[in-house]
Amino acid sequence: MKVIELKKSVSASNDRDADRVRAELKENGVLLVNLMSSPGSGKTTLLSGLIRGMKDLKIGVMEADIASTVDAEAIERIGAKAIQAHTDGMCHVDAGMTKEALDAIDVSDLDLVFLENVGNLICPAEYDTGAAVNVMILSVPEGDDKPLKYPLMFEKSDALVITKTDALPYFDFDTEAVRRRALKLNPGIRIFPVSAKTGDGMNELETWLRNEVDHHKTN
Amino acid sequence: MKVIELKKSVSASNDRDADRVRAELKENGVLLVNLMSSPGSGKTTLLSGLIRGMKDLKIGVMEADIASTVDAEAIERIGAKAIQAHTDGMCHVDAGMTKEALDAIDVSDLDLVFLENVGNLICPAEYDTGAAVNVMILSVPEGDDKPLKYPLMFEKSDALVITKTDALPYFDFDTEAVRRRALKLNPGIRIFPVSAKTGDGMNELETWLRNEVDHHKTN
Repeated sequence: MKVIELKKSVSASNDRDADRVRAELKENGVLLVNLMSSPGSGKTTLLSGLIRGMKDLKIGVMEADIASTVDAEAIERIGAKAIQAHTDGMCHVDAGMTKEALDAIDVSDLDLVFLENVGNLICPAEYDTGAAVNVMILSVPEGDDKPLKYPLMFEKSDALVITKTDALPYFDFDTEAVRRRALKLNPGIRIFPVSAKTGDGMNELETWLRNEVDHHKTN
Repeated sequence: MKVIELKKSVSASNDRDADRVRAELKENGVLLVNLMSSPGSGKTTLLSGLIRGMKDLKIGVMEADIASTVDAEAIERIGAKAIQAHTDGMCHVDAGMTKEALDAIDVSDLDLVFLENVGNLICPAEYDTGAAVNVMILSVPEGDDKPLKYPLMFEKSDALVITKTDALPYFDFDTEAVRRRALKLNPGIRIFPVSAKTGDGMNELETWLRNEVDHHKTN
């Protein structure tokens, strides 16, 4: 498994870099999906489930972390192309860092690449990575007040995946309240409650992702 | 309830500011405890339990968040002095911001002040707030791999509180592995597994905090 040590980009304009990354991926028909969440929201478990459920697609994963390679190793074990990016202490990845990591594993032959952003609900929402689709993950144990506390993340996301729904009986988590709060911040946001453990809701999420992949290749 | 809008300090040296905050609090016999964790780790629920369990102490709380006042409102409802600080999008608080918020509610007559830092395992570990004691909270649903991914947070903390232990039966969480990994990073770290819901382990944590308060007043 490849490990890459990234430094903050020196580029003056992250937005311009992001547009360039997006255009290049579009030309190659590669859909980049940026996954953002708190630490421990179940991103890697969700990804493992999605990769197993969409074996007909060529999928790659860029894991961004401050330290360790545990996530990329878990992804490689289930057969996807993975790269572990270390962010030199930074709490987000920018477009230049994304490009560097994607180039290092060559994603041009893939259909779908997931960028597992650094676990954090603040900084990742502030930096465009060049992804065509932004997805936020909120796990049931984190609580239903998160749209009130981290509005920008909900505003910037195309979809909200509510994970660990199998834990709903053990936590005070009001799914309808989250839905209402998220839609108030972002009326276009798609919401998918799932359990990667039981498989509940995974089909709906996979169908949406497949449509996004198709749409990206043809439009 | 007071709400204060903080901006990043312009001071050249956060470390010097932090030492000044620490000295001033020490002189007044006020113990400042900095609580750091992911979003949704149960900081506010833990705090509510601690405030109820230590009614003999005069306790204040500084809630730091990007947005909303839900946490400070919850704390005020149980009768503690609270201030909600908004961090202007920043993912941490520094010593200058801490001082500004503490001055705004006047903590000089208190025994113990908790600073509920912004929910995040990265940036808060990098900024000395002036607290005499740093405590990290890790909730069971977040997973036992966190010491591998966020080593600095574990290195900087005097104590690790493992919350939501009532959820242990529903998650793959190896408490012994966390203990081993945390002690490897920081051999002096105190570890308290607790459930604020059932009360399990809260006595041990309260005893330790009381000792810290006493020690701070007399040494």
